[in-house]
Amino acid sequence: MAKMTRQEIDEFLATPRMAHLATIDAEGEPRIRPVWYLWRDGALLLTSRLHRHTAGDLRAHPRVALSIASEDRPYRAVVAHGTPEILPKERDGLYDLSSRYGEAEARVWVEEVMHEENRVLMRLAPEVLISWDYGKD
Amino acid sequence: MAKMTRQEIDEFLATPRMAHLATIDAEGEPRIRPVWYLWRDGALLLTSRLHRHTAGDLRAHPRVALSIASEDRPYRAVVAHGTPEILPKERDGLYDLSSRYGEAEARVWVEEVMHEENRVLMRLAPEVLISWDYGKD
Repeated sequence: MAKMTRQEIDEFLATPRMAHLATIDAEGEPRIRPVWYLWRDGALLLTSRLHRHTAGDLRAHPRVALSIASEDRPYRAVVAHGTPEILPKERDGLYDLSSRYGEAEARVWVEEVMHEENRVLMRLAPEVLISWDYGKD
Repeated sequence: MAKMTRQEIDEFLATPRMAHLATIDAEGEPRIRPVWYLWRDGALLLTSRLHRHTAGDLRAHPRVALSIASEDRPYRAVVAHGTPEILPKERDGLYDLSSRYGEAEARVWVEEVMHEENRVLMRLAPEVLISWDYGKD
């Protein structure tokens, strides 16, 4: 098992996998949910509705951890730690992110979520970025 | 979007996907890593080496959250919350768990990890089990 190079991390994160975002809730308990991501300019772009759970978690505890793994051998994974910056929603960012997971669906989805008052983008520039490649010696 | 029925959860978890396990470290920060799982008798069987990170996290904060998601549409996900019970390693449990992810590899892998002093099994009986099926109305 070995780390990935930065180029390997870039290639791994270019594939539209699911990411899993871990936060700490106001009671100090871990919470986790699957999210889409876009890796661009050294940061992960995410989106969420700042409903009660996510907004409360980030207010109580701004630091998060995020995990992305391959489903098949050779197993590879990337884990990021950091504090996401909350950005206002904007059409281009939402489309760039969601169209990775289906272009036709993204066009419909972006128009829907642009109407959501509590929809935000989040930019997570990893303070720590860990990688594993179990296919490497 | 709707919840899954218990039967749908059983079927979803029967597929050997990756799970993502969130813990809270001794400094109170979230930590996350991908893990294999086996859903059996209403509990998730997991395995880990109780190295510094995982062991320290569970001592400091026994409650965990675990997320499993489909990589493709229709998106489905299951999230479990609870306190894992740490069990001594035993060959059958390690094989039942790991052979879901490749039988030939599992036979080799189990013999290797049976030699690991700090290898354990963990049984997470969910106190809370949340599910989403975005393919349902």
